[in-house]
Amino acid sequence: MLLHLMTWPEVEDYLQTNTGIIIPIGSTEQHGPIGLIGTDAICAEAIAKGVGEQTQTIVGPTINVGMALHHTAFPGSMSLRPSTLIQVILDYLTHLTQAGFTRYFFINGHGGNISPLKAAFSETYYHLSTLNIPHSDRIRAKVGNWFMCRSVYQKAKELYGDQEGSHATPSEVAVTQFIYPESIKKAPLSPDVNSGYPIYGAEDFRTHYPDGRMGSNPALATPEHGQQLYELAVKELSESYLKFLHAD
Amino acid sequence: MLLHLMTWPEVEDYLQTNTGIIIPIGSTEQHGPIGLIGTDAICAEAIAKGVGEQTQTIVGPTINVGMALHHTAFPGSMSLRPSTLIQVILDYLTHLTQAGFTRYFFINGHGGNISPLKAAFSETYYHLSTLNIPHSDRIRAKVGNWFMCRSVYQKAKELYGDQEGSHATPSEVAVTQFIYPESIKKAPLSPDVNSGYPIYGAEDFRTHYPDGRMGSNPALATPEHGQQLYELAVKELSESYLKFLHAD
Amino acid sequence: MLLHLMTWPEVEDYLQTNTGIIIPIGSTEQHGPIGLIGTDAICAEAIAKGVGEQTQTIVGPTINVGMALHHTAFPGSMSLRPSTLIQVILDYLTHLTQAGFTRYFFINGHGGNISPLKAAFSETYYHLSTLNIPHSDRIRAKVGNWFMCRSVYQKAKELYGDQEGSHATPSEVAVTQFIYPESIKKAPLSPDVNSGYPIYGAEDFRTHYPDGRMGSNPALATPEHGQQLYELAVKELSESYLKFLHAD
Amino acid sequence: MLLHLMTWPEVEDYLQTNTGIIIPIGSTEQHGPIGLIGTDAICAEAIAKGVGEQTQTIVGPTINVGMALHHTAFPGSMSLRPSTLIQVILDYLTHLTQAGFTRYFFINGHGGNISPLKAAFSETYYHLSTLNIPHSDRIRAKVGNWFMCRSVYQKAKELYGDQEGSHATPSEVAVTQFIYPESIKKAPLSPDVNSGYPIYGAEDFRTHYPDGRMGSNPALATPEHGQQLYELAVKELSESYLKFLHAD
Amino acid sequence: MLLHLMTWPEVEDYLQTNTGIIIPIGSTEQHGPIGLIGTDAICAEAIAKGVGEQTQTIVGPTINVGMALHHTAFPGSMSLRPSTLIQVILDYLTHLTQAGFTRYFFINGHGGNISPLKAAFSETYYHLSTLNIPHSDRIRAKVGNWFMCRSVYQKAKELYGDQEGSHATPSEVAVTQFIYPESIKKAPLSPDVNSGYPIYGAEDFRTHYPDGRMGSNPALATPEHGQQLYELAVKELSESYLKFLHAD
Amino acid sequence: MLLHLMTWPEVEDYLQTNTGIIIPIGSTEQHGPIGLIGTDAICAEAIAKGVGEQTQTIVGPTINVGMALHHTAFPGSMSLRPSTLIQVILDYLTHLTQAGFTRYFFINGHGGNISPLKAAFSETYYHLSTLNIPHSDRIRAKVGNWFMCRSVYQKAKELYGDQEGSHATPSEVAVTQFIYPESIKKAPLSPDVNSGYPIYGAEDFRTHYPDGRMGSNPALATPEHGQQLYELAVKELSESYLKFLHAD
Ligand code: NI
Ligand code: NI
Ligand code: NI
Ligand code: NI
Ligand code: NI
Ligand code: NI
Repeated sequence: MLLHLMTWPEVEDYLQTNTGIIIPIGSTEQHGPIGLIGTDAICAEAIAKGVGEQTQTIVGPTINVGMALHHTAFPGSMSLRPSTLIQVILDYLTHLTQAGFTRYFFINGHGGNISPLKAAFSETYYHLSTLNIPHSDRIRAKVGNWFMCRSVYQKAKELYGDQEGSHATPSEVAVTQFIYPESIKKAPLSPDVNSGYPIYGAEDFRTHYPDGRMGSNPALATPEHGQQLYELAVKELSESYLKFLHAD
Repeated sequence: MLLHLMTWPEVEDYLQTNTGIIIPIGSTEQHGPIGLIGTDAICAEAIAKGVGEQTQTIVGPTINVGMALHHTAFPGSMSLRPSTLIQVILDYLTHLTQAGFTRYFFINGHGGNISPLKAAFSETYYHLSTLNIPHSDRIRAKVGNWFMCRSVYQKAKELYGDQEGSHATPSEVAVTQFIYPESIKKAPLSPDVNSGYPIYGAEDFRTHYPDGRMGSNPALATPEHGQQLYELAVKELSESYLKFLHAD
Repeated sequence: MLLHLMTWPEVEDYLQTNTGIIIPIGSTEQHGPIGLIGTDAICAEAIAKGVGEQTQTIVGPTINVGMALHHTAFPGSMSLRPSTLIQVILDYLTHLTQAGFTRYFFINGHGGNISPLKAAFSETYYHLSTLNIPHSDRIRAKVGNWFMCRSVYQKAKELYGDQEGSHATPSEVAVTQFIYPESIKKAPLSPDVNSGYPIYGAEDFRTHYPDGRMGSNPALATPEHGQQLYELAVKELSESYLKFLHAD
Repeated sequence: MLLHLMTWPEVEDYLQTNTGIIIPIGSTEQHGPIGLIGTDAICAEAIAKGVGEQTQTIVGPTINVGMALHHTAFPGSMSLRPSTLIQVILDYLTHLTQAGFTRYFFINGHGGNISPLKAAFSETYYHLSTLNIPHSDRIRAKVGNWFMCRSVYQKAKELYGDQEGSHATPSEVAVTQFIYPESIKKAPLSPDVNSGYPIYGAEDFRTHYPDGRMGSNPALATPEHGQQLYELAVKELSESYLKFLHAD
Repeated sequence: MLLHLMTWPEVEDYLQTNTGIIIPIGSTEQHGPIGLIGTDAICAEAIAKGVGEQTQTIVGPTINVGMALHHTAFPGSMSLRPSTLIQVILDYLTHLTQAGFTRYFFINGHGGNISPLKAAFSETYYHLSTLNIPHSDRIRAKVGNWFMCRSVYQKAKELYGDQEGSHATPSEVAVTQFIYPESIKKAPLSPDVNSGYPIYGAEDFRTHYPDGRMGSNPALATPEHGQQLYELAVKELSESYLKFLHAD
Repeated sequence: MLLHLMTWPEVEDYLQTNTGIIIPIGSTEQHGPIGLIGTDAICAEAIAKGVGEQTQTIVGPTINVGMALHHTAFPGSMSLRPSTLIQVILDYLTHLTQAGFTRYFFINGHGGNISPLKAAFSETYYHLSTLNIPHSDRIRAKVGNWFMCRSVYQKAKELYGDQEGSHATPSEVAVTQFIYPESIKKAPLSPDVNSGYPIYGAEDFRTHYPDGRMGSNPALATPEHGQQLYELAVKELSESYLKFLHAD
C-alpha cells in the first residue's frame, strides 16, 4: 500500500484500524565507481514496499536526499544539512500526526541518516507536545536500518567476508542490481581500498577514500545476491515493524 | 538519465560537456475522492523522466513532498513549510553547484510549490554568492509547470472544458492513470463541486471544498488522455528546457 | 485611517465592526538612472492611503524593504532574504490576529515581493492554526499589486506602449513624480535598453541590465500621468479590497 | 537626503566621499489613551530626517515595526520577535556593506529596540566577517536614542517633571503633535497611573499598566514643546553622528 | 543549593513553596595578559552559589559560554551568536517553566551578555505565552550583573580608581584570585592601555586593544580584594534577588 | 589544563605545538530518586579534567545542559532542542577553529547527546568549509562516551550485573559519589523497576519509568566504586584521545 497510490478517503478508512506508517529514507550520494548514486534510496524504497505489502501498512513517499555531507566532494552527491533534515522530519510528522498517525517506522538505507533522524525524533516529540493534538504523547518513531538487520549482516559476511566493507558495499550494490538489472555498471576497481578511517568533512573523506569506496569490493555483487538480501531484509524488518506497532 | 542510476564518475564525465539538471517536484496531498495522493509527484516524475530522455539530461531525485499546507486537513496529505522548502532547495543547489552544475530546471506538478520555489531560488542565488564558488554568479534556476504548458492546457480544455477545474483535475488524474493503470479509482462524485474560492488555511479549504476537488470532474479522465497529455508536456517542456539551457 | 495616527482605544473600537487592515509593502532598490530607490514603497504607501480613505480601512505601517536580492549589485538597494520576510510577515500577522484582525490586504509595489508574500501567507496560516486563537481558521490574506490592476495596465500601455518595460517603468516613476514633484530626476537614458532576460542572481542582473532598467523608458513619465495612474489604482484596489473583505 | 528619494547613481556618487548612513527605527505599539500607535516611528523618522539634512547624510527607510512584544496585549500593537529583528538588521547591513557603506547610525525611538539592536550589531559584525567583503572589519554601527539625549531629557524634566514617566511620555507625544498637529488626540486620563513596575510579558504588562501609560501624563504635551524637543534632539544627535562618523 | 547536586524529588519538594531559580551566566573569553579566560564564568558561578546559599535558592548550571563575539580574535575565546543564545535561553526557561518555576534570576559576569539576555527574555515570554502552560503569564526574568552592583562598583573605585577600566578589570581578576588562588598569573603589563574606544567587530577590537585589556590594570588585584568584592556582590545580589522574588 | 584557568597568551603558546582540545558535555536531567540531576555533567567534567591532566591537553568549558527532552517531565530537568545544540556546537567550533584548534574531543556523559553531537559535527564540518579558514578541511571531532569505555563497562557489569540498568545507573551515581561525597543521597528504591522500553516523548517516558530509573539499582553505588570507574575511564579515554590526536 503506497500512500502515493491511495486516495484520501482510503487513508481515512485505514486510520480507523491502523495508525502506523512506513517511510523510506535513503540518500543521493556517490557509491564508488560502480555503485549507483541512488543506491541508498533505491534499497530503502524497495525494501519498504516489501515490508508494506507483507504487513499491510501504508508506505509513505521516499526521502531521497538524506544527510550525506561527507560525500559531497564527489559529483552527483546531494545532501541536506542535519538542521534541515530535522525540520523536514518535523514537518512530515506534524501533519501525519494531525491526521491520526501515531507510529512512524523509517526504513533507512544510509548510515549517515541515523543520527540526524534520532535527533529529529526528539525534536519532533517535543514539538508535537506543544501543539494541541490529543494523542501527541503517544507518538513513536523508530529507524529500521535494512543493512544492519542481523540476517542481512550475516548473509553479507557469508557472501563477501571482509570485502563487504562499509560504504559502496557489495550487499547494497547487489540489491540495486536486483531492482534495476538493466543498470549494472562495470569499471576497474583497485584492489587497494582504504578502510577504517573515520568520517569527518567532505574534502577529507575524498582524500582518504579517493574512489569513494570504504573497504568494499562491490564487483562481487550479483542480482541473485540482491534478491536474497532483499528478502531477508523484508522478512526481518516486517517482524521488527510489527513488534514496534503492537508494543504497549 | 536518472541521477539515481548513474555513478559518480559518470556524473563527472557528464559535467565536462553539460551543466544542466532536471529536478522533479511534486506534492503528497489529497486529490479528491478518486485522485491519487501522489498525483503531483507521479506526474512531475514521469514527465521529468521523459524530458530527460528526450534532451539527454540528468534527472535528479524527485521532491515528493512539497508545499501543501492548505491540503493538510485531509488525511494523508503531507507538507513542508515554505521556510523548510527554502532550506531544502538551498541545500540541494549548493552541493550540485559545488560539483559544477549551473542550470536547474524544476519540473513541477503542483501550483502550491511555485511561490516557495521562486522564493527559494532568490535565497539560493544570494547564498551561493556568499560562498567561494567560481561560477556562482552564473547559476540559473527555472520552474517548468507541466500543467501550465500551453499545449497541455489547450488539450485539457478541449477534453474537459469547464470540468477541468483547478485541483484534482481530470488532466492530472489522467496522467496518473497512464502511469499507474492498475491504480485507477472509482467513487461517486457529486456533480455539485465548489470552485473559485481562494486558498487560505487548511481548515478553511476543507470547509469550502469538502471532498477536496476544486471545480473538477476527474471521472472524465482516461489513461489514453493521460498519454496524450504526458506526450504534450514532455514535448513542450523539452523545448522549454533546451531554450533555458542554451540561453546566453 | 493610518494605524500610526490612531490610539489603541480607537483600534479597539474599530475592531468592533471591522477586522480588515491594509498593509503597504514596497521595496528599496535601484530603479534605473532616474527612478527613485524608494519607488515601490512610495507608490504602495500612497495608493494604500488612498484605498484606506476610500474604504474607511486602517492602513498599517509600510514594509519599506522587501525582497530585492536581484537588485543588490546596485548601490542603495536593500533586501530581506525570503526566509526573513516570511518571519516578518508571520510576526506582523500573529499579533494583529491576536488583537482580532482577520483580513489582511497587502498593497504591493514590487513584483519580487509576490512569491515571498504568498509563501509567507501559507506559513502564517499554518502557524496561526497552532496557536490558541479562536478565529485563527478564518484568517485570510491577499496581495493587491497596484501595477497589475487592469485599469493601470491599460493606461500604461496607452501612455507608453512598449516603452513601459518591466522595471523602472514610466508608470511607477510617474506615480512617484505625482507624490514627490520636487524629486523629479533627469539623466541621459540610452535608447538601447535590454529586455526579456529572466531574473537570476544580482551580479547576473547587473550584467544584463547595466543601468538597472528592464526595457523601460522612464523619461516618458509625468506627474500628470502619475496622478491618473494613482487614481485608477486606488479605485480598482478599493473595489478589490471590499470584495475581499466582504466575501463569505 | 532620503535614500528613497535618490537614484542609484546618486548613491554611487555619495559613496565616493561618504560611507555613513542613518537608519530610523521606531515601533508600532500602543502609547496610552492619547498617544499615537506610530509615535516611536514618527519621532525617529522626523528626527532622522532632521539629522540627515543637518549633516548631509543619507537617511534610509524607517523600520516601522520594532521589538514591542510587551505591548501586544493592546490592539494595534505590532512587533518583531528579537530573533526576527536580528535577521532584518543583518540583511539590511549586509547589502549596504556590499555597496560600500561602513557607518550605520540608527536613530531610535523605542527603548525596547535597544537590546535587540545591540544583539543584532554583534551578530552582523560576525556575519560580515565571514563574507568576502574587503572592508568588513571596519564596519561600525551605533544606536542613537533621541529620548535619551541629555538636552532632551533635561528639557522633558523641566517641562513635565515626574509626569514625564517612561512610556507614552508627554515628550514623545509632543513631538508627534509637532509633526502631525492634525492628529492631536483627547481622552480622559486617570491621574492614578502606575509606574516603576518592570516589563515582563504582554499580559502582565497590561495587567499592571491597564491604559498603557507608564507613569506619564501625556496631556501635558503641546506641539510647541514638540518642536523644542525635536530641535534639541536633531542638534544633539547630529553632533553625536558626526563624532561617530569621524572617529578613527 | 545547586540544582546539579539535587535529585528530582528534592526539586519537586522545593517547588511546593518556592518557584525561583538562579542561573549563573559568564563567558569564555580573553581577559588580557593575566586575566583568566574563564573569569566571567568563574565570578558569576561563585557569586551565584553564594547568593543561593544566602537565600536558600536553587542555583542552576552555569552558562559558561556567552556572547563574546568581539573577543574572538584572541585565541581561547568562545562565543555564541546572539541568535543562538536566544534559543538556548528559550530552551532553558521553557522546560523549567513547564516544571513550575516562575522567577529566573540570571547572575551575570559579562557585559556582552546583557543585550542578548534581555532580547532572549522578550522572545521567551512571548514563546511561553503560545504554549499551554497555566502560569505562563506570570513568568519573570531578571539580569543581576555583579560588577554593576553599587557596593561593588564603589569598592572597585576605592581600590583601583581609574585603573579599574572596563574589561579585564582588577576587580574581576581579584575575584578569580580569591576563588582560584593557585591560578594567579603574572605577566608584564604595559602602562599604556587604550580605553574608551567603542566595541564593534572582533578584528577591530584587537586592533584597538592589542593585549585585550580595556583601560584596566589587573596587576592591582589581590585575593583579599577578591574576597571583599565577592562578599559585597553576594550581599547586594541576595537582596536584589529577594526583592525580585517577592515582588507582587 | 583548564581553558578557564588559562590566559589567552598561554593558549597562543599552546597552539604552537598542539591543536587539540577536550570539551566535556553532560546533561541536567533527572537521575532517579537518589541520582543527582547534574550526574552526567559532573562525570563528564571530572573525567575530562583527568584526561586533560594525563594528556597535557586543554579542557574547555563544560556543556552542562545537553539533549534531554525525554527527561523533561521530571522537575529540574533541562534540555536544549537538538537544533539548538547543533547551533551551539557550530558556534563553539567555529571560533576555536579560527584560533587554530583542529581536534575536538568531546567527553560525553549522556547517551542522549550522541546523535545530536554527531549531527552537529556534520553540520559544522560543512559550515567551516564555507568560511575562509586555511585549515578548515582538516578539522576533526569525536565523541568519547566515558560510560561506554570497555573497561568501565566491564567493571560495571562485574560490580552490578543486571542492576547496572541504562539510566541512573549505579556506575554513574558512584562516580558522582566519588566527586561529591557530601552529596550522597538516600531514598527508598522500589525493587520493581522497568527496563527495556524504548525512549520516545517526555510524558511517555515518565509513564513507563515513573521514578526515572531505567532498570538500575543505584543503591549499589559507593564512592570507592566511583573512584575505580573514574580511573578506568580516564585511562581509557586518555588513550583514545591520544590516538585520535595523533592519527594521520
Ligand atoms: Ni549506501
Ligand atoms: Ni495536483
Ligand atoms: Ni518598482
Ligand atoms: Ni514610545
Ligand atoms: Ni570579564
Ligand atoms: Ni546519566
